[in-house]
Amino acid sequence: MIEKIPPAVTLVEVCPRDGFQNVRTFIDTEYKKRIIRGLAASGITEIELTSFVSPKAIPQMADSAEIAAVFVDELAANCRTIALVPNLKGAQTAWDSGIRTVSYVISVSAAHNMANVRRTSEESLADLRRIKCALPDLKLRADLATAFGCPFEGAVPPGAVLRLMEKVLNCGVSEIVLCDTIGIADPVQVQALSKQARKMCGELPMALHLHDTRGMGLVNICAGIDGGISRFETSAGGLGGCPFAPGAAGNTATEDAVNMLHAIGADTGISLEALLKAVALIKQYIKPDLTSRMGNIGACEEA
Amino acid sequence: MIEKIPPAVTLVEVCPRDGFQNVRTFIDTEYKKRIIRGLAASGITEIELTSFVSPKAIPQMADSAEIAAVFVDELAANCRTIALVPNLKGAQTAWDSGIRTVSYVISVSAAHNMANVRRTSEESLADLRRIKCALPDLKLRADLATAFGCPFEGAVPPGAVLRLMEKVLNCGVSEIVLCDTIGIADPVQVQALSKQARKMCGELPMALHLHDTRGMGLVNICAGIDGGISRFETSAGGLGGCPFAPGAAGNTATEDAVNMLHAIGADTGISLEALLKAVALIKQYIKPDLTSRMGNIGACEEA
Repeated sequence: MIEKIPPAVTLVEVCPRDGFQNVRTFIDTEYKKRIIRGLAASGITEIELTSFVSPKAIPQMADSAEIAAVFVDELAANCRTIALVPNLKGAQTAWDSGIRTVSYVISVSAAHNMANVRRTSEESLADLRRIKCALPDLKLRADLATAFGCPFEGAVPPGAVLRLMEKVLNCGVSEIVLCDTIGIADPVQVQALSKQARKMCGELPMALHLHDTRGMGLVNICAGIDGGISRFETSAGGLGGCPFAPGAAGNTATEDAVNMLHAIGADTGISLEALLKAVALIKQYIKPDLTSRMGNIGACEEA
Repeated sequence: MIEKIPPAVTLVEVCPRDGFQNVRTFIDTEYKKRIIRGLAASGITEIELTSFVSPKAIPQMADSAEIAAVFVDELAANCRTIALVPNLKGAQTAWDSGIRTVSYVISVSAAHNMANVRRTSEESLADLRRIKCALPDLKLRADLATAFGCPFEGAVPPGAVLRLMEKVLNCGVSEIVLCDTIGIADPVQVQALSKQARKMCGELPMALHLHDTRGMGLVNICAGIDGGISRFETSAGGLGGCPFAPGAAGNTATEDAVNMLHAIGADTGISLEALLKAVALIKQYIKPDLTSRMGNIGACEEA
C-alpha cells in the first residue's frame, strides 16, 4: 500500500462545475463567487470554474460567462482556471471568455456517450479534432467517462479505455483524465489501469476523477498513487454525484483527500483549515448535510 | 496496494453492541432481534451481540441477558456470539448467559482508559488477569483502544501499543484487536503497525477495528491487509461512532467493506444482498440517514 509517497499531489477542484451542476435549484451567482474565492484562498492551484453548455440543458451553468469574467483574471496569479465544454461552440465561448484550458468529456462506453452527449464516440472524437483545429492554443483535457464501469453496459474492458486514450492522444490533448463516473472502481482495478494508462501517456499529465458512490474514493486515490498517478479531481464538500443513483454520495471530497494525503506525508499545497471554511460556505448556501467526512466532523477536529 | 489478496477475510459484526450503544433512545428489543437475525442470515460468522455493563451506565444494553438468551443457541451452528464486558462481574454474567467469547477494552493512552472505564491501565490489566483466573475457559479478545491516536493525548507511539500488547498477551487472551477509536489512523500508519503487531501475535488471531470518522475506514482495511491482517470489525449501517465527534461518521460500514472486499476478490462469506436487507431494517427502525455508502446508494445498485 502506497509503496512510494509522492512528495506532492495536485488536486483539481471540480466543485464549482461538477458539484454545482448536480444541485437542482439555482445557486445564487454571488454565493458561487464566495465559495470559489474561499476555495482559491485555501491554496487550490487548479479549478474547474464552470461549464459552457446551453443554459437550457443545464440551467445551473447559465452564469458561466459571469463566473469566467470574474475569475480568469482574479485567480490568474495562483490558480489555473478550467471550464468544461461539450462542443466547439462551447470551446469558442470559453476561449473568448479568457479560459485557456477546457475539459471535454468522451465516454468509453458507447451507451453512456449517447446518453450523456447524444452522439456516438466517433462524433465526439470528430468534434474534439475540430476544436483542436479551430483553437490550436486552447489546452484540452480529455475526460474519459465510464473508464471503470458504465451504468448501462456494466464492466468496461481496460482495452477499450486504452484504445480510446490512444485516439484522444492523437487529437493533441494536453491531459488525460480517467473518470470513475459512477464510483464503481475498486483499488485493484484502479492501480492496474492507472499503471497501463500512465505508461501510454508518457510525459503528458494524467489525472483520475473518482466518485465516492461506494466509499472507495480515498482508497482509489491511494491505488492511483501506487499506479503512478499524482493528480486527482476532487470536489469540496463531496458535491456532485451520479444522476443514476439518487441518495448516493458524490465526488470524493477535497477535504477528505487533503486530510488523508497530508496524513501520509504527501503535500497538496492546500490549507485544510482554509478549505474547511469554504466547505462551511457550501453547507450554509447549498447543502447542510454533506456526504464529506471532514466537512461533518464536528468536535473531533480538535480532538 | 494490496500486494496479495487474501482468499478470505473475516468481518466481525459489531453493530448490535458498538452500533446500538451509540444510539441515544432505547431500541425496542424486538427490533434488535430482527436486525441481528437479518445480519446472521447474511452469512456473518462472528457477531458482538451486546455488552454486559451496568444498565445505569449504558441503558441501551439493559436487555443484554435477553439478547444473549435468544441468540447464543439460535446462532450456535453458524455464528460465534461475542459480548463486551467491562469487568469480572460482566464476564461472569456473560459466561452464565452462555457466552463463550468476550471482548475487553483497555486503552493504550492512560487518559482515554481513565475517561472510558475510570481506572488506570494497570487496574484494567489486573482485572483482565482476574477474569482469566476466574473463568479459564472463557475466550478473551483484548480490544486495545486508541491504538492509532487518542482524543486527549493526540499521537500514540507504536511502541506503547506493542508494550501493552505484550502485557495483554501475557494475560492469556485468545485474540488482539487494535482499535482506531476516533478514526484518525492513516493507511501508512495502519500498515506499519499491523505488520509489527501481527509479528508479535504469532499464530494468535488479530483484528483491526477501524472507525470511518475521516473517511479512511476502507483504505485502512486495505492497509491492514497489506500489513498481514485478514480480520476486521465492522458495523452494519456504519452505526457507532465517536462520542467526542458529534455529527461524525461511525464505524466502517460492513456493507461498504463487503462490497469492496468482494470487488478485489477477497471472499467474506457474506451475501451483500442479504446484508442490505438487514441494513434496511436499521434504516427503518433506528436511523434513516446512514453514513454508510452502500446503505444509501439507491438506484445505482442496479446500474
